[in-house]
Amino acid sequence: MTQTKCFDLSVYLVTDPVMAAASGLVETVAAAVAGGTTLVQLRDKDASTRDLISVVKALMDLLNPLGIPLIINDRADVALATGAAGVHLGQDDMPADIARRLMGPGPIIGISASNADHLAAADPDVVDYVGIGHVFATATKPKALPPLGIEGFRDLRERTSLPVVAIGGIDPDTAGPVVAAGADGVAVVSGILRAPDPQAAATQYALAVAAARFSHSRTGGNR
Amino acid sequence: MTQTKCFDLSVYLVTDPVMAAASGLVETVAAAVAGGTTLVQLRDKDASTRDLISVVKALMDLLNPLGIPLIINDRADVALATGAAGVHLGQDDMPADIARRLMGPGPIIGISASNADHLAAADPDVVDYVGIGHVFATATKPKALPPLGIEGFRDLRERTSLPVVAIGGIDPDTAGPVVAAGADGVAVVSGILRAPDPQAAATQYALAVAAARFSHSRTGGNR
Repeated sequence: MTQTKCFDLSVYLVTDPVMAAASGLVETVAAAVAGGTTLVQLRDKDASTRDLISVVKALMDLLNPLGIPLIINDRADVALATGAAGVHLGQDDMPADIARRLMGPGPIIGISASNADHLAAADPDVVDYVGIGHVFATATKPKALPPLGIEGFRDLRERTSLPVVAIGGIDPDTAGPVVAAGADGVAVVSGILRAPDPQAAATQYALAVAAARFSHSRTGGNR
Repeated sequence: MTQTKCFDLSVYLVTDPVMAAASGLVETVAAAVAGGTTLVQLRDKDASTRDLISVVKALMDLLNPLGIPLIINDRADVALATGAAGVHLGQDDMPADIARRLMGPGPIIGISASNADHLAAADPDVVDYVGIGHVFATATKPKALPPLGIEGFRDLRERTSLPVVAIGGIDPDTAGPVVAAGADGVAVVSGILRAPDPQAAATQYALAVAAARFSHSRTGGNR
């Protein structure tokens, strides 16, 4: 969207209810946020709609006072029902233009892209950011395609003017190179949710992203 | 809703994509509609949102010219995205008042009810009809509770002034007693979708419902 929206993709936490169930999703997200997570996406393809609404409300109680947007994977109805900040739409989810029509101009709409065609279809008048991946191999979701790698990611990233969050197997050591390749932030699932200390893990990512940006700007990078 | 809406619950087909896959869902629904189906609910909890939208559009191409409403199970976003006639909400789906707020006064909203509490919560200012069941044992969905039976159905039906469709194991022979017990129509899954001739099966239901209504009005029944 051309309208300026206020969101920060730096450390973008994607929830996985199974992973976080041991310690409780809300508690894990609270720790991740205390550590520097800047945006949270709730992804739960299996929950009932009523349960999903209930989890969204619990997360919004945590995140809204902190000014951290909560994005709902796939479900525009759940986002509209709860007043969540927006939706993230995969290539099998609702097309972004339809979601924009339903939701109006205000909510954040992000899409997933894994190839040049997806990027070509990402309309900056409709979409607010793009998640590009998977950059590295990951165990979170079974993948049909090989990972992009840093160079594959850079090639796709340069095809859009939209803000981009990189996703897929990114750890604090690889977050820097990914940001240097043009990412505005890194999306993380297991790297935070499966960490023994989710707060410390989020901080590691936040510092890695900040350091890469600083280093990149000092060496004259134009992203 | 107090507003009068035009829909006919007499023979209410609930789709099951697995059952209908052999011959193609749209073809099976076309046959069922040719046989006298008056309303179609699309139920598919497993499809991706994009696939669901695509199936809805194909069904609407069939049903809209015939004036037969297509109701979407659970997904208000899919109904809004496609302009389908409404949604059917189970007790684990979005609460009806939230769906009404999102969808506005026009679309049909139905809910499922299987006990007196559900009926007490069915607000006639929000909900357009109630599906009450399961009346008889059914193989379509695993059930935690025993069937209501005719008398259990009648008891629940009398607790609401809303139009009621009965669901659960109803065949053409039992459709009559169910209508005599106060149902405005019968919801059918396997009885039509698994029939060797879905069109003929739908006609059997339609005739049974019509005959029961006629007989009931002649004998002075007040429902």
